Amino acid sequence: MKKARLHFPRIRPIAYEGPTSSSALAFRHYNPEEVIDGKTMAQHMRFSIAYWHTFASDGRDQFGAGTLHQGRPWERSGDAMSVALARLDAGFEFFQKIQAPFWCFHDRDIAPEGRSLAESNRLLDRVVAHAKELQKETGIKLLWGTANLFSNPRYMSGASTNPDAHVFAYAAAQVKKALEVTKQLGGENYVFWGGREGYETLLNTNLKREQDHLAAFLHMAVDYAKEIGFKGQFLIEPKPKEPTKHQYDFDVASGIAFLRTYGLEKYFKFNIETNHATLAGHTFSHEIEVAASQGMLGSIDANTGDLLLGWDTDQFNTDVKELTLAMVSILKAGGLGSGGFNFDAKVRRQSIDLDDLFHAHIGGMDAYALAFKIARRILADGKFEQFVADRYASFDSDYGRDIEKGRIGFKELNKLVLNKLGEPKPRSGKQEYLENLLNSYLHG
Amino acid sequence: MKKARLHFPRIRPIAYEGPTSSSALAFRHYNPEEVIDGKTMAQHMRFSIAYWHTFASDGRDQFGAGTLHQGRPWERSGDAMSVALARLDAGFEFFQKIQAPFWCFHDRDIAPEGRSLAESNRLLDRVVAHAKELQKETGIKLLWGTANLFSNPRYMSGASTNPDAHVFAYAAAQVKKALEVTKQLGGENYVFWGGREGYETLLNTNLKREQDHLAAFLHMAVDYAKEIGFKGQFLIEPKPKEPTKHQYDFDVASGIAFLRTYGLEKYFKFNIETNHATLAGHTFSHEIEVAASQGMLGSIDANTGDLLLGWDTDQFNTDVKELTLAMVSILKAGGLGSGGFNFDAKVRRQSIDLDDLFHAHIGGMDAYALAFKIARRILADGKFEQFVADRYASFDSDYGRDIEKGRIGFKELNKLVLNKLGEPKPRSGKQEYLENLLNSYLHG
Amino acid sequence: MKKARLHFPRIRPIAYEGPTSSSALAFRHYNPEEVIDGKTMAQHMRFSIAYWHTFASDGRDQFGAGTLHQGRPWERSGDAMSVALARLDAGFEFFQKIQAPFWCFHDRDIAPEGRSLAESNRLLDRVVAHAKELQKETGIKLLWGTANLFSNPRYMSGASTNPDAHVFAYAAAQVKKALEVTKQLGGENYVFWGGREGYETLLNTNLKREQDHLAAFLHMAVDYAKEIGFKGQFLIEPKPKEPTKHQYDFDVASGIAFLRTYGLEKYFKFNIETNHATLAGHTFSHEIEVAASQGMLGSIDANTGDLLLGWDTDQFNTDVKELTLAMVSILKAGGLGSGGFNFDAKVRRQSIDLDDLFHAHIGGMDAYALAFKIARRILADGKFEQFVADRYASFDSDYGRDIEKGRIGFKELNKLVLNKLGEPKPRSGKQEYLENLLNSYLHG
Amino acid sequence: MKKARLHFPRIRPIAYEGPTSSSALAFRHYNPEEVIDGKTMAQHMRFSIAYWHTFASDGRDQFGAGTLHQGRPWERSGDAMSVALARLDAGFEFFQKIQAPFWCFHDRDIAPEGRSLAESNRLLDRVVAHAKELQKETGIKLLWGTANLFSNPRYMSGASTNPDAHVFAYAAAQVKKALEVTKQLGGENYVFWGGREGYETLLNTNLKREQDHLAAFLHMAVDYAKEIGFKGQFLIEPKPKEPTKHQYDFDVASGIAFLRTYGLEKYFKFNIETNHATLAGHTFSHEIEVAASQGMLGSIDANTGDLLLGWDTDQFNTDVKELTLAMVSILKAGGLGSGGFNFDAKVRRQSIDLDDLFHAHIGGMDAYALAFKIARRILADGKFEQFVADRYASFDSDYGRDIEKGRIGFKELNKLVLNKLGEPKPRSGKQEYLENLLNSYLHG
Repeated sequence: MKKARLHFPRIRPIAYEGPTSSSALAFRHYNPEEVIDGKTMAQHMRFSIAYWHTFASDGRDQFGAGTLHQGRPWERSGDAMSVALARLDAGFEFFQKIQAPFWCFHDRDIAPEGRSLAESNRLLDRVVAHAKELQKETGIKLLWGTANLFSNPRYMSGASTNPDAHVFAYAAAQVKKALEVTKQLGGENYVFWGGREGYETLLNTNLKREQDHLAAFLHMAVDYAKEIGFKGQFLIEPKPKEPTKHQYDFDVASGIAFLRTYGLEKYFKFNIETNHATLAGHTFSHEIEVAASQGMLGSIDANTGDLLLGWDTDQFNTDVKELTLAMVSILKAGGLGSGGFNFDAKVRRQSIDLDDLFHAHIGGMDAYALAFKIARRILADGKFEQFVADRYASFDSDYGRDIEKGRIGFKELNKLVLNKLGEPKPRSGKQEYLENLLNSYLHG
Repeated sequence: MKKARLHFPRIRPIAYEGPTSSSALAFRHYNPEEVIDGKTMAQHMRFSIAYWHTFASDGRDQFGAGTLHQGRPWERSGDAMSVALARLDAGFEFFQKIQAPFWCFHDRDIAPEGRSLAESNRLLDRVVAHAKELQKETGIKLLWGTANLFSNPRYMSGASTNPDAHVFAYAAAQVKKALEVTKQLGGENYVFWGGREGYETLLNTNLKREQDHLAAFLHMAVDYAKEIGFKGQFLIEPKPKEPTKHQYDFDVASGIAFLRTYGLEKYFKFNIETNHATLAGHTFSHEIEVAASQGMLGSIDANTGDLLLGWDTDQFNTDVKELTLAMVSILKAGGLGSGGFNFDAKVRRQSIDLDDLFHAHIGGMDAYALAFKIARRILADGKFEQFVADRYASFDSDYGRDIEKGRIGFKELNKLVLNKLGEPKPRSGKQEYLENLLNSYLHG
Repeated sequence: MKKARLHFPRIRPIAYEGPTSSSALAFRHYNPEEVIDGKTMAQHMRFSIAYWHTFASDGRDQFGAGTLHQGRPWERSGDAMSVALARLDAGFEFFQKIQAPFWCFHDRDIAPEGRSLAESNRLLDRVVAHAKELQKETGIKLLWGTANLFSNPRYMSGASTNPDAHVFAYAAAQVKKALEVTKQLGGENYVFWGGREGYETLLNTNLKREQDHLAAFLHMAVDYAKEIGFKGQFLIEPKPKEPTKHQYDFDVASGIAFLRTYGLEKYFKFNIETNHATLAGHTFSHEIEVAASQGMLGSIDANTGDLLLGWDTDQFNTDVKELTLAMVSILKAGGLGSGGFNFDAKVRRQSIDLDDLFHAHIGGMDAYALAFKIARRILADGKFEQFVADRYASFDSDYGRDIEKGRIGFKELNKLVLNKLGEPKPRSGKQEYLENLLNSYLHG
Repeated sequence: MKKARLHFPRIRPIAYEGPTSSSALAFRHYNPEEVIDGKTMAQHMRFSIAYWHTFASDGRDQFGAGTLHQGRPWERSGDAMSVALARLDAGFEFFQKIQAPFWCFHDRDIAPEGRSLAESNRLLDRVVAHAKELQKETGIKLLWGTANLFSNPRYMSGASTNPDAHVFAYAAAQVKKALEVTKQLGGENYVFWGGREGYETLLNTNLKREQDHLAAFLHMAVDYAKEIGFKGQFLIEPKPKEPTKHQYDFDVASGIAFLRTYGLEKYFKFNIETNHATLAGHTFSHEIEVAASQGMLGSIDANTGDLLLGWDTDQFNTDVKELTLAMVSILKAGGLGSGGFNFDAKVRRQSIDLDDLFHAHIGGMDAYALAFKIARRILADGKFEQFVADRYASFDSDYGRDIEKGRIGFKELNKLVLNKLGEPKPRSGKQEYLENLLNSYLHG
């Protein structure tokens, strides 16, 4: 740990003096110790660092080699296991300095894969033991764990939806272990992102059978969690299109359809990622509202995409407007419970300096913290909520209420219209007024 | 009727001599009387003409006035009701000449809207009586009816999801009538396309409450159908994005999520439109397979979009490759039952000649008929099905079968992998081979 | 004029008390009389109202009838010409109250089309005479005029690119008149938006010949402007995809390609619309920078689209971040000259109240005014400009300067690299730092 | 060479017996020796294999490791240079067996990169010498060469548009060498694909200065080619969005704008890639027609994307309809000259068998060959061309001809319309008829 603590520059908690130089590393809006409504901001925000992007990945893309690791001294620590351990030290140093109370990982992010599953498990155990110490020492907790069921070539045609039962079995064994280590590290949730659970072409695919297998797999996970006493929340993370042309968990709605079809709806909530929402053709807020409307809002993968690009760019989100709308929906839904805001985001391939890791996370955390504060003010004022309540007021009484209560049907409503109500009077949706009202919160 | 019969040129059933001139109006692949497997092609294909596009609409777009009606003599028949009746005559003349056994309509396509609902109902009754005669006289049947709950300004903020209960009531009365006339005309299905059932901005919307209202509305429809003895199949037609920024029935999966959430899944199937599928980010075949995997494949709105454009272009689909893939999925699912192929497609705004209506439908019907024949040959040969069956064969026995039967869990599979199975051997998905195999059917 | 002045509510110039009710009609950031750098904000911003969206259009869309005109008393003024004149009175009342110094129109927005071109010209002359009075009386000026060459069915296959020379001739006659009335009303620019100048399918199109005709048309316009002494700036307004599948003026770059190919580059600048930029796959700022890099930045059509939708939604833009970036690019380019910010935006179809017209424009004008102020502060501080200048500093001296001056070639650079320079050292692009720096200007 | 010849299975030239098994490796439509119009099909088609996709790449994607190389014995030949040489042997074995007369490469595809430019050049020289022998031995020729200026981290911020002049110099040295080896191997063209020539964010970018540098670089290339006597055609390959958010060579039109702005238009033509066309929002045919309209159609990168996905999927194109339309445009333009059809396409990540390389290329070559034959038949029949010629006939005489000749202006046309022509009569665009006509060629 000592050596690791020397890697990163200091970050000043809240004494921000303005971005006078590229080394200005400080928050403007996020102070983890600030108390609001009896909870610290750290408790409100439950920020988490995504180990894969921020530490495991090297910035490579489909057109070129990695750029990020050459500036990171711990990456030159020797063999794969030594690098894994040194990287974890650096990780926890970073988590502390950036003042994030949580982290998240895939099994294969933190430990190298061995030549057999048994060896992989042993390597993982060694790193997990070290992680446990680091968690204890620093107080940083595990928001969620997961298994990487997509990077190894064995999973090229899917894991639980692979046409080969052997691969299904392998994936089962890997998730069994991942559940165990997540429990061991006190993970508060466990995430299923459907990596390559989908299909490239229907020419070689039995869609129904693959979805049956996916359901069988999730039922096994639920059963095994019960067996080992893992109490964390299971989360489905929807994503469309990438890496597989058609991913089964396209969006929250398709996740709900799947879970309800297979009787899994009471065991799962959703981990919603901004960039996945927009790739599916939805706003971030839409996906939050759809999940919340079913009591299935679990956690957030905090990032953003580029709406002019067609893939997951996983950028840090600094759009306070978008985040404020999302925070309003989250707060109205009662918050995230055991979930949190996990920065599933990566520095740009050209952002090769160590301090770029700080700039990136500071920007994201600040934007979320500011959005949280603005959203609280919006909800406290209640103008939007009142507007919406008024708009639907006709359903609070009389035949409107009867509609909601199921006490009336087509015949009665037909009579009402013909004999009494006549033609409805259109009312303005006042979208522009509401957009201006929103801007008055965002820009003083 | 007599006058109407003079509007359109003759069309030669199958004596096609090649497209030597623009007036070559004949089929190359669709012969309604050709018998295959004991059924005529007309019975296999169940083609239907969409009255709204082919007769009611005039080709206007957001940037300009209608172009199509000036070349149609029946459009100059006098007042609105006279035009409606003359148009219907022309419609049935066209249905006969194009040899389509079915038609489809919205209430407001066929009859003008009156100054009150009562008057609208009376106007509708007059046209429906005429339609009934024409159906009887020609043998042409109604594939499905529906109500237009989106064009009138009263529905600008939705029908059953309108924030005003008065509009809900009005929509209820309108659908009540539409169900009655659909029954009266022997409609084999009734379609709900969610016109403006969605939202423009969450700033003024209670998503949960709107979805509750939509469910209440559909339950009322189910109840009323029972009450009047309407036996037709109810169909949901998913569509994303247009005209409302977020439509609740985004795609088949979101429809399934909705129906299962509200206990409606046994009363509804899906009417799948090609252009709606692609706007949602899916292939046409994907939507068919998803519906079929739940036994909810109902009917097809046969058209296509332009994947480089972001809206519903509703073009006639002449892409035999895409249609062959769709027909394979449909035939594997056991066909469409009471559904059919409804040409929810419109001639281009520049296709102003009367014979363009024929070219358009001939192209679409021919492409579908050819696709049907190729798909039958593909299925008869069984090469694709065999390939797929072989690919999943490991689930037919041993632990693969146990997985499907729910007789095995993570612990057992883990042991199997560690002690016996080891590392899976990757197998090629052979996509390029299969694409070539497909082309060998498409291009001889 | 007198009657018109009674249509709209009062708007309080800058005494904004917060959005406590939907009738709060006041600016927060735009005060037309505020003096900055010796010019009023009105002079800086040169805001203009788009007559077509705000007055001529009724909110109809492809799926339903107009919603907006029923709440506008002047729309019930009698015959088409009476309505046109009353609408113009209402327009100028609105321009005054909203404190916009400019307006813009198409010929067919302001006057009804007659049964012949001669009659259309006479009707236009009457309205133009009235507009001239209203301009004089109110001091409101014409930012630009244009001709509608896309709404009438005669233009369904294009105007100057129509395959029929007769239509070309008709369009020529129409633009001749539009140039004359634009001159008459003191228009500071004249815009060519390529309405239906494009093609639906290459199957029926001679692309080269159509582009030749478009060039011939623009040369005629240049010649005629010289002949009548019209000194306004000609502007091309690029737009992709809509209404024609492929529009020739897809984006600024394709406009430059076209203008340079046909020797027109010194007569035209660009009118850049935000929504058109994004439909073409570019950011608003990108299009501004591309035009500015060639000295061809002319004017702005101020609106926004919805990046999750695939068509021109023409919404009012309240995204201060996007507008700040645009304003930085515009100010760096030296401003818009004879151009301005024309609100080519429309209230939502559900925004049917008269005060929605105010909310919409207030929101847009405020967002632009705030963006202007932030952009000025950004440029005054110079942090971004300094960062960029430093980043390219190696081109300011030595072999970098020789590259820019064309004094060095591959051979010399090869020698330099082999003998002296060796491997370059990568430097961070610092994107996240810069995004945070931007947010520090946007959110205090 | 001997060993290499044992890697691949035999392929039967044209004795195709149908796709009865996955090992059916034969053409159905492409017979390289078939003579049409005095030239062999090999001479007509000028097919080329893209070394990077088919040999250098291993199938990795952003979410997982490579899958393809484990089944390729030559990839286990020892050190990097030994693998490079063995891979080249395998490559030429494949080129022969697949009967492609050309290949294409980037410098870094064929040889490993050394620790310095000098070493890289030496390694390249060794491989180029071997390639020269293989070319001589097999008769296979080089369609084009190019330099990889995007994979190495030094180019993360661009090559000739890098803000660091040092990187510009390095890229210059690399292209100098690539031009030399392309000349040495008789390359008939040299391609510039703008890898990372673009920007990620305008916050750190001087767009104008970067484009100036790009132009300076291309002028240097032109000069150096003259100096060394390289006579091959220079080609720009446009691509939008990937890997850089905004690539400067977005599409053909932006390439024309750039070339004409910097006086480079007479030295360059375009290498058009299907997948790049569609990512830019255009059809493949559109890009061909735009280039051809300026006499700048150079060569084709033959592949396809997935229009429901937002990135370059580089699939083998088996869509005979799309290719027929493209071939019609190419043949009308007089063919590709020194260009060819280069399969810039990759087998799917799951297509790991050696014979998948054959299936993939057979499918692509067959589809192109069939499209060529159909296109020839279409042009021989002349129906489409006649239709188009008739459509524009009004420009062949009278005032239409005067318009094209520049002998008439707005005033004269205005008089004509007012006094003689009156209102134009709209004529149908007959799109559906033409689509059916096309299908009659595609499907018998």
